Amino acid sequence: MKFGLFGSAQAKRGGSPDVDSAKGYRDWLEFNIEAEALGYHSAFAVEHHFTGFGQVSATINLLTFLAAETSTLRLGTAVMVLPWHNPVLLAEQAATLDLLSGGRLDFGVGKGYRYNEFDGFNIPMEEAGDRFEESLDVLTRAWTTDEPWSHQGKYWSFNNIIVEPPTIQKPHPPFWMGAGSPNSIEGVAERGYNLLLDQFAPINVTLERMQTFRTSVESRGRKFDANEVGVARGLYVARDAADRDEAIQRRISARNRIDNLAQRPDGANKASIMSYDDTTETALEASLFGTVEEIVEKVSKLSDGGVKYILLSDGGSGIEGLRQFSKEVMPVFSTDEKAEAAE
Amino acid sequence: MKFGLFGSAQAKRGGSPDVDSAKGYRDWLEFNIEAEALGYHSAFAVEHHFTGFGQVSATINLLTFLAAETSTLRLGTAVMVLPWHNPVLLAEQAATLDLLSGGRLDFGVGKGYRYNEFDGFNIPMEEAGDRFEESLDVLTRAWTTDEPWSHQGKYWSFNNIIVEPPTIQKPHPPFWMGAGSPNSIEGVAERGYNLLLDQFAPINVTLERMQTFRTSVESRGRKFDANEVGVARGLYVARDAADRDEAIQRRISARNRIDNLAQRPDGANKASIMSYDDTTETALEASLFGTVEEIVEKVSKLSDGGVKYILLSDGGSGIEGLRQFSKEVMPVFSTDEKAEAAE
Repeated sequence: MKFGLFGSAQAKRGGSPDVDSAKGYRDWLEFNIEAEALGYHSAFAVEHHFTGFGQVSATINLLTFLAAETSTLRLGTAVMVLPWHNPVLLAEQAATLDLLSGGRLDFGVGKGYRYNEFDGFNIPMEEAGDRFEESLDVLTRAWTTDEPWSHQGKYWSFNNIIVEPPTIQKPHPPFWMGAGSPNSIEGVAERGYNLLLDQFAPINVTLERMQTFRTSVESRGRKFDANEVGVARGLYVARDAADRDEAIQRRISARNRIDNLAQRPDGANKASIMSYDDTTETALEASLFGTVEEIVEKVSKLSDGGVKYILLSDGGSGIEGLRQFSKEVMPVFSTDEKAEAAE
Repeated sequence: MKFGLFGSAQAKRGGSPDVDSAKGYRDWLEFNIEAEALGYHSAFAVEHHFTGFGQVSATINLLTFLAAETSTLRLGTAVMVLPWHNPVLLAEQAATLDLLSGGRLDFGVGKGYRYNEFDGFNIPMEEAGDRFEESLDVLTRAWTTDEPWSHQGKYWSFNNIIVEPPTIQKPHPPFWMGAGSPNSIEGVAERGYNLLLDQFAPINVTLERMQTFRTSVESRGRKFDANEVGVARGLYVARDAADRDEAIQRRISARNRIDNLAQRPDGANKASIMSYDDTTETALEASLFGTVEEIVEKVSKLSDGGVKYILLSDGGSGIEGLRQFSKEVMPVFSTDEKAEAAE
């Protein structure tokens, strides 16, 4: 099994002049630099705007800095929200990161789901789907076309352009896309993209989704590769049950805060990521919050279900949790790989 | 006197599969990393699109990577062309660079002047001025406002946003702006920005412009500081006169190629940067192309005219030229500073 990281740095504006606003970014960088040394495979960073609590907004920039300070870590976006971006500028920025990092970009993309972001950018949520499709067309063409080309679309037009620099990965960095409903998962398979599964779904739901994806890929005559499915999970390496239970309550509160930002005034936001109940039981079952033994048990369930790539989101145990996980959990699952390799 | 660098990396797309498209970027990075060690003050990078010969498009990304590999070098854009960018995304990207670099961003801005870029982005050249103004308003507000705010403009609208992360430099990274005509220079003084003077104007024209700026600043009751004027100059450290003359011919050809891209189909592009004649004499007079002795003489003329900050654009003598310049030209002018400091 492979383990990557998924999360956000934080740099809040305002507050007292004593607050070191750069610290959150530096901490995140150091966290990921050490993660590379500990054997983690990737760092996926979010893109969010206007929260007022300092989530990462310029994701590709932050990953570009991280690229300079690492050498093997895959650098992922999870996800770039395409409706906010001029697709040609985005293609240039992503290509620059891919080039500078020696081809380490994993390009996760999404339509967006938070009301406050659509409102902030003054883009109707109803346009998200069409903007997403048009942007993917432009991005793909920008990365794969060496001769001047033009595009006349619903939202964007470009005339006689050549998009530079070229990407290192050919034909372009892999696309990753989040999905929850069977229809959406089918859509990801149809595009030939890799799949991101969210961190809030209970294990059985996650495994069903993975199975849906496998069937969709295979029904198109392609070989299914479990490395092309990243399963996000919250991680908290707890000292004991009490420590774990306190951490899970903090996780539930944080999720409610985000859901409030995401919700539309009419309550009609039905994104699958917002559909899970917020009971302690579900939150515990769906996350890797627990003692080392409990975590091993949950990872085993995922592994037994065919999951090969887990993206860990730090739930508060920080770099110490990553160290412990790499020392005490990873080896349990790397044996599998050795066994498989020996087959 | 201070010496910085001004230029572009190159990563051309297409060509044979053997071409290492990343080499141009890596060379540029190594060039600037060594420049920092040699005592250069800054690296300003251009932003250009769709040339087909690989100029830098995602300028802030490239500077972000350079930020991670340097520690004192100022990181400049020369210039970000505001009409291409969503001003809020740009504010986030620039703030992220400022934050990650510890406050080293010099934010050069421009309206754009190349026809092929306006056409490529499908933006009428006639809108450049209004888009530029609106973007500056949004950028400044984004960087200086801690509470949610909204903007309803001609080209952009934003509702209840807080732009994060915060910049390190307060109230925001310094704006730099290119100008040539007396009116434009007056405008830069009016805004309170720093001034960039182009690399093609003959020395006497450059000094006149600087004088115009000085008068404009002082007439507004502010103190003039020559460190706030960056004078761009092409540099080629030549072995001898023949070597110099070959280099200047290459420079003239390269400039013609750019002017062709910039020109409108009707020939009506009257940007001041395109107004100089392309005789060998003018090109030689306006550049620091020559033997060390000749270069010292030209820098002296600028220095005598009050110039304190020169931005060197590599004309082909490469890192060896920078080494020679730092060893044989810089010391001649650093004495001045020591003398001044002792006064």
